[in-house]
Amino acid sequence: MKRTTLKEVAALAGVSYQTVSKVINRQLQVSRDTEERIWQAISASGYQPNQIARSMRTQRSRLIGYTWAPSPPDQPNPILDLFLHSMTKTAEENGYHLLCFPYGADLSRMEGYQELIATRRVDGFILSGVEFADPRVQFLLEKDFPFVAFGRSSPGMVFPYVDVDGAAGMRQVTEHLIAQGHRRIAVLAWPEGSRTGQERLNGYTWAMRDAGIEGLSNWIVRGEGQVAFGIEAARGWLTMPENQRPTAIAAFNDLMAIGAMQAAREVGLEVGVNLAITGYDDTPLIQYLSPPLTSVRQPVWQAGQCAIKILTDIMDGKHAVKSQALLEPQLVVRASSSFTLRK
Amino acid sequence: MKRTTLKEVAALAGVSYQTVSKVINRQLQVSRDTEERIWQAISASGYQPNQIARSMRTQRSRLIGYTWAPSPPDQPNPILDLFLHSMTKTAEENGYHLLCFPYGADLSRMEGYQELIATRRVDGFILSGVEFADPRVQFLLEKDFPFVAFGRSSPGMVFPYVDVDGAAGMRQVTEHLIAQGHRRIAVLAWPEGSRTGQERLNGYTWAMRDAGIEGLSNWIVRGEGQVAFGIEAARGWLTMPENQRPTAIAAFNDLMAIGAMQAAREVGLEVGVNLAITGYDDTPLIQYLSPPLTSVRQPVWQAGQCAIKILTDIMDGKHAVKSQALLEPQLVVRASSSFTLRK
Repeated sequence: MKRTTLKEVAALAGVSYQTVSKVINRQLQVSRDTEERIWQAISASGYQPNQIARSMRTQRSRLIGYTWAPSPPDQPNPILDLFLHSMTKTAEENGYHLLCFPYGADLSRMEGYQELIATRRVDGFILSGVEFADPRVQFLLEKDFPFVAFGRSSPGMVFPYVDVDGAAGMRQVTEHLIAQGHRRIAVLAWPEGSRTGQERLNGYTWAMRDAGIEGLSNWIVRGEGQVAFGIEAARGWLTMPENQRPTAIAAFNDLMAIGAMQAAREVGLEVGVNLAITGYDDTPLIQYLSPPLTSVRQPVWQAGQCAIKILTDIMDGKHAVKSQALLEPQLVVRASSSFTLRK
Repeated sequence: MKRTTLKEVAALAGVSYQTVSKVINRQLQVSRDTEERIWQAISASGYQPNQIARSMRTQRSRLIGYTWAPSPPDQPNPILDLFLHSMTKTAEENGYHLLCFPYGADLSRMEGYQELIATRRVDGFILSGVEFADPRVQFLLEKDFPFVAFGRSSPGMVFPYVDVDGAAGMRQVTEHLIAQGHRRIAVLAWPEGSRTGQERLNGYTWAMRDAGIEGLSNWIVRGEGQVAFGIEAARGWLTMPENQRPTAIAAFNDLMAIGAMQAAREVGLEVGVNLAITGYDDTPLIQYLSPPLTSVRQPVWQAGQCAIKILTDIMDGKHAVKSQALLEPQLVVRASSSFTLRK
């Protein structure tokens, strides 16, 4: 079979040779119609701008590896859909695609990453769910292999990341509750040693201190984020004498907040009337709970876009002007906390 | 730099040359420890079982393309996380990886698919959200390019698919409601022309007919799946005279069921006591609504696994013994419908 040339494709599409070449290599934005015409001409002519051949020349796969922890059954992943769409779109705009690979439950074992590097399957990685002293960060830094993390790790570990400012998020929640008249504000926090949990706890602590409120140590309870834990912890608080029990419970995720709402129902307290409860993540459907749950929304699209842009700049050898980005989350106030506390 | 050979890797890992070769090419399952030792030896020796070189030899990318419609904000995608994990894991077990690409809102434009085929970026596709006369199915059939659809299309279009039996799902729901004493059962259905909607409606119609119940045409209302639509449609039914209004509302997704629950609250009916409501999809968090919502759970892991297995068999030229699979969904009964209707 005679090999079709780029020139023939260009003639068929009625554009110049350079335009076809640049569109194929994603170095040029053209109108949707022109792009459609070019791909149709490529398809009709049988021309193959073969990514395999291009990879052989450049020894680059133009793929970005990503994996993430699966959510337990019955628990939603509130960011996955938007995060993946944001990343695939931004990657494509920069001439890359996203390769998803299986999640290894044991983070200290690097097989998945090792294999993708050794086989030259990917040119870089996006990491999420980053923790203190994250072994993946250490491994990739040692290998000097391109990556960008969604989330920070231990202080002193310097690497490119995008993160949402969890301290700012919990500060917004706490200041909102204080503004509604609350002073006895308890938190359902993450376990000791959680990177994200530490940030969020700082936001709470700072807001309480700035308002001159002395928090009690038993107002902070740490759990694994399950509904059952929220029920149990909230029961403990809500059965205290009325003049001592918290008037507001701020949870570090929506599931623990849902648990606290169930505990309130058990003891006959009315959330949104004489008890405020807030969540975190703005999981879909929480606006349909009774009452709708106040929560914190993360700028997920922006996070995915920003992470990929930093990574493609690194992989393409461009100087990353700003290789670390901290994004601001947004408080979404709903009926579970919007009332003013009567003294 | 001297090129490391496979023999040196084998010596380092303490296994045979054949074992290393087969593990790299995924033709052999070994223990986790052996596999870990082999990848460490590969990494330490600098040996590169280069996927790029292998692709050049075989002209195969060993990538599977997948894209999906993004969910609107505040609406969950109840299957995405599990479906992707199931597919990435099964793909890897068969020597493939999943490539995610941006979703083109206009299904009739095939740019995304055309480009990935023309550049030999992928060896096959998984499709989801398949509709009647789906243009992607027609396009890929014409191209004779490997794909497997999650969902069926028009009768007469023959292609490999995995689907969940929506008729069986709605039949289970309807039979459950009839068994609890309901006869006036209304449905919040999908719009005319929806492939999935037609299946589910058949399940309802068959169950009603088998029970000898004559359904009224105004018991079937079609909407786009939003909460707001569920509210509006349910208001119409619930304001009818008591001896005429439906005692059960079965929705084709959880969001419309949530809308119906809100409408019931407005008119003072108590869901789970004198009105039954059911959803579909078993979206995370619906077990925390008041009352918890009965729904239908799809075998998502099995669907992803099955779709990839059929596709890799096709791509690898193996005879696909069973290239179409219809899986059974599972009714999950909760308080919103578990009561027996008093006559």
